[in-house]
Amino acid sequence: MNKQSLIKLIKQKKSFLCVGLDSDIDKIPKHLLNNEDPVFEFNKAIIDATIDYTVAYKPNLAFYESRGSIGIRSLEKTIAYLAKYGDQVFTIADAKRGDIGNTSAQYAKTFLECYGFDAITVAPYMGEDSVSPFLTIKNKWVILLALTSNKGAFDFQLIENKATGKRLFEEVLETSQKWGTTENMMYVVGATKAEMLADIRQIVPDHFLLVPGVGAQGGSLQEVAKYGLTKECGLLVNSSRGIIFKSAEKDFAEVAGQEARKLQEEMAEILKL
Amino acid sequence: MNKQSLIKLIKQKKSFLCVGLDSDIDKIPKHLLNNEDPVFEFNKAIIDATIDYTVAYKPNLAFYESRGSIGIRSLEKTIAYLAKYGDQVFTIADAKRGDIGNTSAQYAKTFLECYGFDAITVAPYMGEDSVSPFLTIKNKWVILLALTSNKGAFDFQLIENKATGKRLFEEVLETSQKWGTTENMMYVVGATKAEMLADIRQIVPDHFLLVPGVGAQGGSLQEVAKYGLTKECGLLVNSSRGIIFKSAEKDFAEVAGQEARKLQEEMAEILKL
Repeated sequence: MNKQSLIKLIKQKKSFLCVGLDSDIDKIPKHLLNNEDPVFEFNKAIIDATIDYTVAYKPNLAFYESRGSIGIRSLEKTIAYLAKYGDQVFTIADAKRGDIGNTSAQYAKTFLECYGFDAITVAPYMGEDSVSPFLTIKNKWVILLALTSNKGAFDFQLIENKATGKRLFEEVLETSQKWGTTENMMYVVGATKAEMLADIRQIVPDHFLLVPGVGAQGGSLQEVAKYGLTKECGLLVNSSRGIIFKSAEKDFAEVAGQEARKLQEEMAEILKL
Repeated sequence: MNKQSLIKLIKQKKSFLCVGLDSDIDKIPKHLLNNEDPVFEFNKAIIDATIDYTVAYKPNLAFYESRGSIGIRSLEKTIAYLAKYGDQVFTIADAKRGDIGNTSAQYAKTFLECYGFDAITVAPYMGEDSVSPFLTIKNKWVILLALTSNKGAFDFQLIENKATGKRLFEEVLETSQKWGTTENMMYVVGATKAEMLADIRQIVPDHFLLVPGVGAQGGSLQEVAKYGLTKECGLLVNSSRGIIFKSAEKDFAEVAGQEARKLQEEMAEILKL
């Protein structure tokens, strides 16, 4: 999906919500476990209940890979199911990959071509040749980790560069801008440090940002919008556990739909401004 | 496998060779493609031909994931096959994972428990809570990226910290030492910059180092040993393409065995010193 279509989708749904399909088999409602593929059944129900309020879905690969080839089958079926909604969804493989050139090229092929995801999250530590193979496929996106929402973000991401005075995540934003464009690159920026979004917008005024950490991890949607919103929206805000595991009973999908709707309504107000 | 058993294995085989199973289906000998699972047949033949000269095997996950659930089946069969060799091999999932705590915990479960790998490569960018879940399983190892062997390593890994004067990869070595021990943590250090191993040994005198980039990527085994060897060896030197794809004909396994043997003989000389 290209940038124009993504923006159109946001306007049409009045939402910049991304639902994280962190579909841990140990946390999905017990009554689904009788199905042949409980995780797929769960995802399907969540997708159907939230699709009107959601512009993007983001399966976190760890929860699929952890069940070996069976888990990968659940992922394959989920992405095929999402494909039915065509231009109504933007899909993100939350894989956090990054390896030497020939290996990153394999990952790009896997996630963006074989599975057909619109985007993949990529880790920056190995530099340009680990990221650029993901940028060669038309209308596909890299979402590069810049400032993450976890405690460990403080270990290295805030180190100040002696030569430039910039922090590591700022170096990542600056340097990587040269590798891609606003049409094929986004950044992961954690919502737990919303005020830092102001600094980030100085460096990347127009790039889309994928913001995890709203909800379960403590970030506020209002704060994120205050510092991060652009005239083209420029934000995808992710919520995972706060939506998909809000209820573990038979009403799980209905409740997930209600939670997604609440966020969408808040987003619609923000987009009016 | 614990550290003592690994050292014993190195002494017994007079080798610190790791064979990278980057088993790209587009590069394996064409006559194997008639098999039901060509990649597994390839790996099996490579393993049998190299086992006497090799202490570790390292499948690079990208080459398995790129074929979806079918590729994961090849990986599952390969690791099950390696398990037959019991204490005669150390197994490394070259996955370069790293995510927020609950996700890293899933990856740890996947690779170290379900598959039963001895070790997994992990990316440091997200800090302690992205790494520590991998350190909780007895006799299992994290191999943390410090200084990689690709060109992009220069983009961020050499940034000097204003506060300490240390480069990012040195910060990673220093900080992460507190998370684990020499019994459950190793580091990836590329061989293309062998002289930097001297600096690295100042910080981590006793940790095992996994050294890629010997052979196809241009590093020299003698140089690596000169700067990196410890009294307990302390090195695993990886070769992938230089062994497994040396011949693409019917003799591929035999040739791979010869290449592994050459490296092992060089290593046996080094270990005598």
